Amino acid sequence: MNKQQLVAEIKRKNSFLCIGLDTDINKIPKHLLDFEDPVFEFNKQIIDATHDLCVAYKPNIAFYEQYGSKGWDTLQKTIEYIPENIFTIADAKRGDIGNTAKMYAKTFFDTYGFDSVTVAPYMGNDSVLPFLDYQDKWTILLALTSNPGADDFELQKLESGKYVYQQVLETSKKWGENIMYVVGATRPEMIAEVRKIIPNHFLLVPGVGAQGGSLKEVCQYGLTDEIGLLINSSRGIIYAGTDEDFAQKSREAALQIQKEMTILLHK
Amino acid sequence: MNKQQLVAEIKRKNSFLCIGLDTDINKIPKHLLDFEDPVFEFNKQIIDATHDLCVAYKPNIAFYEQYGSKGWDTLQKTIEYIPENIFTIADAKRGDIGNTAKMYAKTFFDTYGFDSVTVAPYMGNDSVLPFLDYQDKWTILLALTSNPGADDFELQKLESGKYVYQQVLETSKKWGENIMYVVGATRPEMIAEVRKIIPNHFLLVPGVGAQGGSLKEVCQYGLTDEIGLLINSSRGIIYAGTDEDFAQKSREAALQIQKEMTILLHK
Repeated sequence: MNKQQLVAEIKRKNSFLCIGLDTDINKIPKHLLDFEDPVFEFNKQIIDATHDLCVAYKPNIAFYEQYGSKGWDTLQKTIEYIPENIFTIADAKRGDIGNTAKMYAKTFFDTYGFDSVTVAPYMGNDSVLPFLDYQDKWTILLALTSNPGADDFELQKLESGKYVYQQVLETSKKWGENIMYVVGATRPEMIAEVRKIIPNHFLLVPGVGAQGGSLKEVCQYGLTDEIGLLINSSRGIIYAGTDEDFAQKSREAALQIQKEMTILLHK
Repeated sequence: MNKQQLVAEIKRKNSFLCIGLDTDINKIPKHLLDFEDPVFEFNKQIIDATHDLCVAYKPNIAFYEQYGSKGWDTLQKTIEYIPENIFTIADAKRGDIGNTAKMYAKTFFDTYGFDSVTVAPYMGNDSVLPFLDYQDKWTILLALTSNPGADDFELQKLESGKYVYQQVLETSKKWGENIMYVVGATRPEMIAEVRKIIPNHFLLVPGVGAQGGSLKEVCQYGLTDEIGLLINSSRGIIYAGTDEDFAQKSREAALQIQKEMTILLHK
């Protein structure tokens, strides 16, 4: 999916919501455990209930990988079930030297057919470029994350006066066009700083909802003429209900955010 | 495997060699393609031919993951085939927020039973601590990697005058005891700088051989009273031969390094 198509979908749906499929078998409604693949059944019902309200789904790979090859089968079924016009993000946060990065890119782009994958920048250009070589795909680079540990390294100041995360933006924006960035919602005022370096790139923003970030503030600093934002919510949507009506509850939670987004888009 | 056991194995075998099982189906001898699982057959024969010469095996997870659930089955068979007294490293370079990091730790330590996993530090403490919670397991944190891209961020100077990778060492060494570090062999003089911050930690050193690092120089700067080094070689060993005698050739390549290590250990 290219940028124009993504922007068109956002405008059509009045939504820039991404739903995180962080599906934990211990947290899904008990009646689903009778299915052959309870995690897939859960994802399927969540997708059925929400696909007209969001523009992206983001399975967190760790949640699938923990079950070994069986989990990867569940991931494959899930990705195949997501409708064509929805942007898919493999939240994998991979990062390794050139020939290994190539394999990771192959895994998520070719084997599983994701539109995008999250990548960690620590190892520098040759760990990211093999992902960017897939020019019809997107690399979503970690910049400023929403967790407390961001203080340890991302928010350390360099000799130049810039934070490490700012250097990541400065350096990596020259590597290619097909790049987006993870910027956490728990520090919305920093999105203004991010926009000074990358005024037009799409940002994938986690941390709205369960982690405490405000959608309104994120939009105030982050929205661009071409939207430029994908706001992720995982737990707040997929675990909105705990009973047989869980999918309906997840729809209600997604609808609430989508309504808020409609207002913010037309301000 | 605890530190004492690892050091004892190193002394018994006169080797601190780690063999990287970066097995690529396009690079293995053609006659193996007749087997049901060619990659596992290759790994099996490499392990049979080299297990008395090395103390660790390090499958690079990307090489397995690219084949989806089938690749993860191959990984599982491989890890189960590795003898008990050999240290196993999942070269996965994972890194994500707390509850996700917990899943990754579970994957490699519980589901697959690895002794250790490589972890990326970018997201800070809460992305690493869930791995360290497995106190009988090891977390191998990326510090200074051997690839050219290390210049982009790892070798940026902070306001304090320290490099980012030095800050990673300084900060993370306080997080727990069961931690090792990846430090590349292509910059051996920097191992002296690393030893000023972490005089006793084990280092996993890639980059000897194919990437151009010198074993002698790495030892000069990195060896400690308790050895403190695991030197990885992947392609130089596993692809030493290309024909039916590939396992014998890999043994010869491993033996050459092991002999050099024997001399360096008894200097």
